[in-house]
Amino acid sequence: MKLFTTKIAPNPRRVHIFLAEKGIEIESVEIDLAGKGNLSADFIAKNPLARVPVLEFDDGTYLAESVAICRYFEEIQPEPPLFGTDARDRAVVEMWNRRMESEILGQISGCFRHSHPYWEGRITQVPDFGELCRATVLERMAWLNGEMANREFIAGDRFTVADITAFCGIALGRIPKIRIPEDCGNLQRWYDAVGARPSVAG
Amino acid sequence: MKLFTTKIAPNPRRVHIFLAEKGIEIESVEIDLAGKGNLSADFIAKNPLARVPVLEFDDGTYLAESVAICRYFEEIQPEPPLFGTDARDRAVVEMWNRRMESEILGQISGCFRHSHPYWEGRITQVPDFGELCRATVLERMAWLNGEMANREFIAGDRFTVADITAFCGIALGRIPKIRIPEDCGNLQRWYDAVGARPSVAG
Repeated sequence: MKLFTTKIAPNPRRVHIFLAEKGIEIESVEIDLAGKGNLSADFIAKNPLARVPVLEFDDGTYLAESVAICRYFEEIQPEPPLFGTDARDRAVVEMWNRRMESEILGQISGCFRHSHPYWEGRITQVPDFGELCRATVLERMAWLNGEMANREFIAGDRFTVADITAFCGIALGRIPKIRIPEDCGNLQRWYDAVGARPSVAG
Repeated sequence: MKLFTTKIAPNPRRVHIFLAEKGIEIESVEIDLAGKGNLSADFIAKNPLARVPVLEFDDGTYLAESVAICRYFEEIQPEPPLFGTDARDRAVVEMWNRRMESEILGQISGCFRHSHPYWEGRITQVPDFGELCRATVLERMAWLNGEMANREFIAGDRFTVADITAFCGIALGRIPKIRIPEDCGNLQRWYDAVGARPSVAG
């Protein structure tokens, strides 16, 4: 297997942290997004949506979508479990991972894409939408801070894929200048703890 | 168990079709979205994000997020499999379900939310973003039409949750007047076939 990916983007980073938590090493090929390597005919043949990461199987087929790639590795190497431990727990982790996608990573990504000069000429930017995403994620971080008052991780007392999603979202926030508000101590405590994990800091 | 849901919204509909495909019947409680029943204190206690559907377990805890609810039922009643049949197939279904969320349902929902009078006063609308979503989904339907040239269903030769997601998205498109383009015969053939299934039409 081979992973076509890039060092500096939130979705590839989700997969890199996931694999590091599992202790899985895999051959990887850097795709130069700034140089539009993802728009080459060769890469479009791997993923017509032109996004990284993409996993190449040994039979020459491809798997795109970060969470699909993570789920595949969860199945072939279940330990440590990052998608939950039984039917109920897996459903709760799924709920929180999706909430972190739609309310945190998705909003911060929306702000970045629609407000930052990097995306000029790459996508049609709607700056008002970028600012709406910025306002939304600040509300959502206040909500999440309350949720985190009595637990260590996003989906409960165990580190899961939902922590990876939320962390990569908030880390991306540095570019469009979205920070955890000062009165969100629970969220900041969690963010610092995740940031110190070997899979993230190493 | 009890499902708090509504008859006329795409995400609840995903769960209803999923349960019908499984042959699962469950007690359901209608939440009146037009009357803002989802904003009541009682409902917010079930899901702080104020969205339907929400599954209540018999121990009084709650599970939100349509796909989390579907995954729970997939685990407790695996037949017929709607999330794939082995590690590779489940990863492929996950990829396609996510693509259908981000490229079809998400774009059509974005157009509806940001362009339709129903949402005036309910959310901050950015009409230019709604129109961007409309243009994007037309491109994506053309791409998907090509993908569907040689297969019966979105993720391969078996009906899966990815078909449910895509169908509920395209069905929602009637409201903001997004239709399958006339030159997308493969997609139209698939849409008509899914629409005729007892789980959808019944």
